[in-house]
Amino acid sequence: MSADELVADLRGGSVVDEPGTAGPAVRRARAWLTRALEPGSVPAWRFVERVGPVEAVAALRAGTAPPRVQAVAGARVAEDASLDDLRRAERCGARLVVPEDDEWPTSALHCLTVASSALPDDHRLDRTLTPVPPLGLWVRGDGALADVVDRSVALVGSRAATAYGEHVTGELAHGLGERGWTTVSGGAFGIDAAAHRGALAAGAPTVAVLACGVDRAYPASHSALFSRLLDGGLLVSEWPPGCAPLRHRFLVRNRLIAALTRGTVVVEAAARSGALATAHRARDLGRALMVVPGPVTSAMSVGCHELLRDEERGARLVTTAAQVVEQVGSLGADLAAPPARPASPRDELSDVARRVLDACPVRTGVSPERLAAVAGCDVLDVLRVLPALELADLVQWTGTGWRLHPPPKTGTGASR
Amino acid sequence: MSADELVADLRGGSVVDEPGTAGPAVRRARAWLTRALEPGSVPAWRFVERVGPVEAVAALRAGTAPPRVQAVAGARVAEDASLDDLRRAERCGARLVVPEDDEWPTSALHCLTVASSALPDDHRLDRTLTPVPPLGLWVRGDGALADVVDRSVALVGSRAATAYGEHVTGELAHGLGERGWTTVSGGAFGIDAAAHRGALAAGAPTVAVLACGVDRAYPASHSALFSRLLDGGLLVSEWPPGCAPLRHRFLVRNRLIAALTRGTVVVEAAARSGALATAHRARDLGRALMVVPGPVTSAMSVGCHELLRDEERGARLVTTAAQVVEQVGSLGADLAAPPARPASPRDELSDVARRVLDACPVRTGVSPERLAAVAGCDVLDVLRVLPALELADLVQWTGTGWRLHPPPKTGTGASR
Repeated sequence: MSADELVADLRGGSVVDEPGTAGPAVRRARAWLTRALEPGSVPAWRFVERVGPVEAVAALRAGTAPPRVQAVAGARVAEDASLDDLRRAERCGARLVVPEDDEWPTSALHCLTVASSALPDDHRLDRTLTPVPPLGLWVRGDGALADVVDRSVALVGSRAATAYGEHVTGELAHGLGERGWTTVSGGAFGIDAAAHRGALAAGAPTVAVLACGVDRAYPASHSALFSRLLDGGLLVSEWPPGCAPLRHRFLVRNRLIAALTRGTVVVEAAARSGALATAHRARDLGRALMVVPGPVTSAMSVGCHELLRDEERGARLVTTAAQVVEQVGSLGADLAAPPARPASPRDELSDVARRVLDACPVRTGVSPERLAAVAGCDVLDVLRVLPALELADLVQWTGTGWRLHPPPKTGTGASR
Repeated sequence: MSADELVADLRGGSVVDEPGTAGPAVRRARAWLTRALEPGSVPAWRFVERVGPVEAVAALRAGTAPPRVQAVAGARVAEDASLDDLRRAERCGARLVVPEDDEWPTSALHCLTVASSALPDDHRLDRTLTPVPPLGLWVRGDGALADVVDRSVALVGSRAATAYGEHVTGELAHGLGERGWTTVSGGAFGIDAAAHRGALAAGAPTVAVLACGVDRAYPASHSALFSRLLDGGLLVSEWPPGCAPLRHRFLVRNRLIAALTRGTVVVEAAARSGALATAHRARDLGRALMVVPGPVTSAMSVGCHELLRDEERGARLVTTAAQVVEQVGSLGADLAAPPARPASPRDELSDVARRVLDACPVRTGVSPERLAAVAGCDVLDVLRVLPALELADLVQWTGTGWRLHPPPKTGTGASR
């Protein structure tokens, strides 16, 4: 092990990062780590934080990492698929986003850092429930990850959804999209698929957080849905390309859905369903937990009603996208922003301007009259605030109507 | 006015009451008052409380009652239909129950006394919302009023209910009946009718609190329903026989539905519906407020969801009769019993005995195995506690099974 080519490459790699993006050595080290260290281990994440990704790889390869961290990796320390993984990602239009990148969702994932800091270093029991941040995120799609998930809501629920559940989910996702909010879900059958489709119908970005590699379509029949989703949206995974959707990975993945969004809406859930786990986690992370009720005669709403009956969970009943936005909007204002986060231009806006901004669609421009109707204010108010919003690069005139200004594109230097 | 025959009759009437029932003079005086004083006036109720019903009549007839009380009665002081009303009641199997009777629901109506004591004497604004106790209650049916409503729940909701709402209401009322709880409602179309019918299907008592005389079937098509309801249940009204269901009387009546029951369940309610008024009043009186959710796509559930979203109201989502019983049971235990109330034999029971008692049906006897299933305990426990429950006259062996011991019948001396 004295002449480890991987470690030599990493240590000899570029130490000068391009502005806003990690250097190739850091990215490759983290690519290796995402395959060697199954997500969810507190000591592993802490070790990488302490020594940095390159030295973490070196220690694991040399067998000198702390025993608990070495144990998480096991025999995988001897393998190296890091370059293959990065190339494979590039081939499918994906990249590895790392904490050293500007597009890393630092603000959103801060809650996982806080929650995991309370855990003892030897915490290994029930790893699937551990609120530890990811070591890196494989991302497929054009948008900058932090921007796309900045104003996002998770819609989750049963795979065996009813027509009612899918209808309501579609309406919510569509309404959220119209208000400039990103819908995040898990890409599965049922509620997940209805959420992604509803957002797409509104021309709004939607994010599927997967429990397998972003190059895989799982379930296979969602291959076309995922392709459509990539037009403005993202596929995100903690696991490198090619990884299989193992059963326990869905639970690990759920903490990411909860953390990346400002709140989670459970639309349909049977008693003891997986969606309830995401719901509980959202609440544990201080996120808004919202629940859509349904007929009490429907088994698919039993879990929803149980959440609403559990007063300690503080779940809020919601029936419309406007109610969801009200909930996550106010909560966002109450949360202290983590130090790294730059002030948003939104903060400077008047109440009317913010409502007009929230009313702007993502893709298709609309008339001031339409904005006034959605924002619930006078069209004269809309005409008064639009010039300032345009000057601040928050809205854009398409030639036929007003829409949100697209977020800055990234992807440069994101792979390799 | 110096020779008022009515007052002479009342003052010369029997002053010796039969045990447990008011004397004829008191009853006739209150019969007169229920027609002369439209319910809901704080000064009128306080005046009758202070001087007693006979002297209240004398003062009103002589025009010497306080001006505010005199104003409530108006020209009606010159009329006297008291004997006619009592005879008319007797002809339809009804009686006037007065606060001086043992069967008066003192305990239940205590909340109205407490709530009204906070009001100023000149409170007249918005009298429909005034939580003042009734001066007397016209009751049709055999059961003792206080016993029938002792363990009762109100099921209220829209007249224009959906098939879903009626189905769920019927199930709830049936389940409550099976558990020995009385269902109280307003006798109207929709949710009310489904509530009464569900209770009847379980062979359980159900009470319709009307906004017109108990000799009138309103709506007329509910004539057969009301007849069936009288077999074990009651029709109750603050207004004397023959009175019409005037619009404002429904709101006044709603406070009685809220007060007489341990909790109110709203099953379906459109935005700004009358059922919401009953719901708010139940909460204001310290009663449990429970709400059944429905599809968010149904206009008939909009009011229900608004109640559940209003955190200050503290409405609890319920989906089954068991959940309703859990809510009113625990709340009942937390409420301080008013002083006048004798200790209930229930108070002495063990937890298991109470559960078995609650599992006993009202009418048809059931096997110990069935009791064990409903009570959620072992059949051996059931067999162990039944003898004690029987000795305490709480349960009864019908020859084929166990049921609740019927409440003591009243009606003797209730009219004349």
